[in-house]
Amino acid sequence: MSYTAPVKDMLFAIEHLANIAQVAQLPGFEDAGLDTAQAVLQECARFNEGVVAPLNVVGDRNPSSWKDGVVTTTPGFKDAFRQYAEGGWQGLQHPADFGGQGLPKTIGAACIEMCNSANLSFALCPLLTDGAIEALLTAGSDDLKATYLEKLVTGEWTGTMNLTEPQAGSDLALVRTRAEPQGDGTYKVFGTKIFITYGEHDMAENIVHLVLARVQGAPEGVKGISLFVVPKFLVNADGSLGERNDARCVSIEHKLGIKASPTAVLQFGDHGGAVGYLVGEENRGLEYMFIMMNAARYAVGVQGIAVAERAYQQAVGYAKDRVQSRPVDGSLKTSATIIHHPDVRRMLMTMRAYTEGCRAMAAVAAAAYDASHHHPDAEARQQNTAFYEFMVPLVKGYSTEMSLEVTSLGVQVHGGMGFIEETGAAQHYRDAKILTIYEGTTAIQANDLVGRKTARDGGQTAKAIAAQIEATEGELNASGTPAARAVARRLTTARTAFLEVVDFIAASAKVQPNAAYAGSVPYLMLAGNLVAGWQMGRALLAAERLLPEGQDEAFLRAKIATAQFYADHILVKAAGLRDAIVEGADSVTALAPEAF
Amino acid sequence: MSYTAPVKDMLFAIEHLANIAQVAQLPGFEDAGLDTAQAVLQECARFNEGVVAPLNVVGDRNPSSWKDGVVTTTPGFKDAFRQYAEGGWQGLQHPADFGGQGLPKTIGAACIEMCNSANLSFALCPLLTDGAIEALLTAGSDDLKATYLEKLVTGEWTGTMNLTEPQAGSDLALVRTRAEPQGDGTYKVFGTKIFITYGEHDMAENIVHLVLARVQGAPEGVKGISLFVVPKFLVNADGSLGERNDARCVSIEHKLGIKASPTAVLQFGDHGGAVGYLVGEENRGLEYMFIMMNAARYAVGVQGIAVAERAYQQAVGYAKDRVQSRPVDGSLKTSATIIHHPDVRRMLMTMRAYTEGCRAMAAVAAAAYDASHHHPDAEARQQNTAFYEFMVPLVKGYSTEMSLEVTSLGVQVHGGMGFIEETGAAQHYRDAKILTIYEGTTAIQANDLVGRKTARDGGQTAKAIAAQIEATEGELNASGTPAARAVARRLTTARTAFLEVVDFIAASAKVQPNAAYAGSVPYLMLAGNLVAGWQMGRALLAAERLLPEGQDEAFLRAKIATAQFYADHILVKAAGLRDAIVEGADSVTALAPEAF
Repeated sequence: MSYTAPVKDMLFAIEHLANIAQVAQLPGFEDAGLDTAQAVLQECARFNEGVVAPLNVVGDRNPSSWKDGVVTTTPGFKDAFRQYAEGGWQGLQHPADFGGQGLPKTIGAACIEMCNSANLSFALCPLLTDGAIEALLTAGSDDLKATYLEKLVTGEWTGTMNLTEPQAGSDLALVRTRAEPQGDGTYKVFGTKIFITYGEHDMAENIVHLVLARVQGAPEGVKGISLFVVPKFLVNADGSLGERNDARCVSIEHKLGIKASPTAVLQFGDHGGAVGYLVGEENRGLEYMFIMMNAARYAVGVQGIAVAERAYQQAVGYAKDRVQSRPVDGSLKTSATIIHHPDVRRMLMTMRAYTEGCRAMAAVAAAAYDASHHHPDAEARQQNTAFYEFMVPLVKGYSTEMSLEVTSLGVQVHGGMGFIEETGAAQHYRDAKILTIYEGTTAIQANDLVGRKTARDGGQTAKAIAAQIEATEGELNASGTPAARAVARRLTTARTAFLEVVDFIAASAKVQPNAAYAGSVPYLMLAGNLVAGWQMGRALLAAERLLPEGQDEAFLRAKIATAQFYADHILVKAAGLRDAIVEGADSVTALAPEAF
Repeated sequence: MSYTAPVKDMLFAIEHLANIAQVAQLPGFEDAGLDTAQAVLQECARFNEGVVAPLNVVGDRNPSSWKDGVVTTTPGFKDAFRQYAEGGWQGLQHPADFGGQGLPKTIGAACIEMCNSANLSFALCPLLTDGAIEALLTAGSDDLKATYLEKLVTGEWTGTMNLTEPQAGSDLALVRTRAEPQGDGTYKVFGTKIFITYGEHDMAENIVHLVLARVQGAPEGVKGISLFVVPKFLVNADGSLGERNDARCVSIEHKLGIKASPTAVLQFGDHGGAVGYLVGEENRGLEYMFIMMNAARYAVGVQGIAVAERAYQQAVGYAKDRVQSRPVDGSLKTSATIIHHPDVRRMLMTMRAYTEGCRAMAAVAAAAYDASHHHPDAEARQQNTAFYEFMVPLVKGYSTEMSLEVTSLGVQVHGGMGFIEETGAAQHYRDAKILTIYEGTTAIQANDLVGRKTARDGGQTAKAIAAQIEATEGELNASGTPAARAVARRLTTARTAFLEVVDFIAASAKVQPNAAYAGSVPYLMLAGNLVAGWQMGRALLAAERLLPEGQDEAFLRAKIATAQFYADHILVKAAGLRDAIVEGADSVTALAPEAF
């Protein structure tokens, strides 16, 4: 099944929701207007549709394989990654100083979506490299930057994030990998890391591992963790590759999905110690790692949108082709393509509305990210930072949770054929399941939303967003069309539910933490649902504004119909979530652990 | 991961919800009281825990394989099936006249759940055989019964259902397989059938295929379909096996899940015609097939409960073992087992509540089935038939849809380990996905619920059930405990939503079919949610009644807590579904097929 990048929908979100014209007024982004976005997206679509997408099924059937410490990736991946690097895609959002193109996230996010729709497994390699670049840019010494950054930005080398150990998953306080200072500024690293995405592969000549470890004598828990660069091959003073470091891949995992992406167990220091270089200061590793994590969390949210889009396209293709049963309204006397059946339409509309809603949410979050870094005004930067940070758990948590439902519906639309692996629908269902887990499970995102993003400021950021949503409701009511009024009504109900939950969370997070955290994931789902629905409401308004211009009428009418569907069928879940959170907290923990 | 049959919970449902004492008063079931249920369930648990469950993972890793028309099942399956047959499990619910034990469905359903929890792939073979037995019992000639029934009931031979063809899935009007009368009472059958579960295997010496085909000159569409017995080996007059019939397995499918269960493509008549024997009358095949289908649909609903139970047990085991992070309430200064974290509890309670609720619903439906067949009073039979037939799409549709959510949560509780196939949680997630598809997709169940079960009698059966629910609300309010009142309140809201939907569906199914069918699946989900919640409410009342007796206090308190969780977190979805169905019908079909 081929992939066609939804360039038009992406540009609509970039232009009318993320407001690229405003982004292009930020210092440093002067050339990043709509024309640039258009050109970049078209080129990106061409590359991913033509080169990356055809390798998706191939990767599922011929996963990466391990032998004697060497990982061989799926045939075609190495060449595709070379083209990816040569095309400059790795450096899209990174500084020109290190060989990048310095484009805003508002544009970059759409490109990341395309690559992930084309091939989730393939796209993970650049995703992790992006994280390594972010960490080095923020905390790396000039030396580390000089040695590693350009190679990473140009895609000659790739990067990894080494957090997890067998006993330390979500709980990084339990990290045991240790680093011993050698007196010459370097360290020797010893330990085992698991679940390391692209921890070993044959697509680049060097791999730059960013590794969490404890220096002897460091404080207990997360305050004693430091971050190290541990390259696969040491780098000579002239930048050429030196000897092999003492970091070995001892196995890769056999997984439910994203099978082409090698998930490595890495052993550091079995032969005398892996040479590591401290990033920033000792014991501040977690802080730096969160820089990578936050970039990666947003990107994983985009992966959710990406796999949903791919599943949607495949389901639409099948529904337009498969002939089965007469329409229930008697409009045809013979069997029709199944897209004529109301429940198939309901499934496709659900897939479409979730995907467009989350894409719009991610686009708006990306614009806030750009402003948070580039806006000349400190207060504007601060406001955009607060907004973006509130969005990260929603983009990550909500977009990935919805991708489970969307990819499940994708199989369902195919009926029995969906269960047959050759059809390809099942791959998306399997691939998507990792997205609610890695880079912090949905519960971890929800804890972040409850604690750092809501309770800490007493719900202030949440309420500021609610006020913006209320303004959109006003505009929708002012428009007065049936669709706009329907969306406004659902937004009002959902926003009211959201505000009651925010008050509950803000009031209880400290004094009744079990009650607040019992509702954390439902709160995340409610907030994500509302914000995506809000953006669909804004999209509807934009579409209504544009309709009289007489262009793209079918596209604009589809946008309006999709927004109304979102409101009628997805936003309506908000009130039930409020009840569960505000009134159902006690029943979550009523049964004691030993009673299970 | 081992399996422990939830015998106590099953017996609770059988005794207090399905009211086995009443079933045992029905003619023919005099010996089928609680003592019998207890003895049978204990023996069944022993067998499935010890023999069948250990083969579940084995089957996933060593699926059935095909070579030159011969299918070899997973090592161990053949021997386990021999023990299954020798234990009399195939004949549990079938008449003693043909070697069965004649037990009520009220008991049999629990046994079927156990076998499916133990091993979904394995249990499919007896499930299909049950369907073949039902069809022959209802419509087979004395000759066919004499030749085939005892062999099927004793598990010496197995049965299959041959409906689907490449162009005919849900739409049986498109069946092309043809049957030519030979003038001697037999037919020759020609055609291709796909998706035939256990269509070929090595676990029994003969396979009795029940095949839908058209006799030449039959009417177009579903009114021209007849049902035939086509055995793998012809049967001699003395009951011994004769020559191989012209029915061959040309391949088996490579599937997302239930990998040990061979899904065959069968080719009939490539070498002169497969000998077939007409079941009942010509052109009434669909009617007979629906007898099998209805038995099978209920059983597939039980499969949903079964896989949910297995996933739940595995998740609880992991959550009690895995140590990660401190409790949010500061109750421990060190990392705790993850069952101490509120969101893990929320996930486990969701899994538990769904599973218990659907089990209770299925148990009550089974008792109605028994009464519908055995009650001496015609009106009581009719009422029970109406109730049971309303329940079938709910048991099938709701229990399987919930199993997708439950098995997904099962993976999620495991975090990253859940994505690793060796953990075993992912198998349940893959296996469950077929359940919302085969024996009629959820949409097909929902169409049945809308058309035959609701619109046809103007919502009368639905309203009669709502009245029973209202009575339970009264009892809950009379009890007056906080838990009972909480459940009553949620039931009232959900029932009110249900009644509004029933009115909408009954009013629009004929005049605005697209609107009614656009809400068909949400209506099924609302009805299933309500009925399962109702049974949880009844379970709570029973538990409150039993508590003063001083036995099983922990079990009874857990039942009450689970019922309240169900009400607070699952029943609360009802109102949103009402809104989507009653007010959101137009937006389902607003986007024309060509606009996708």
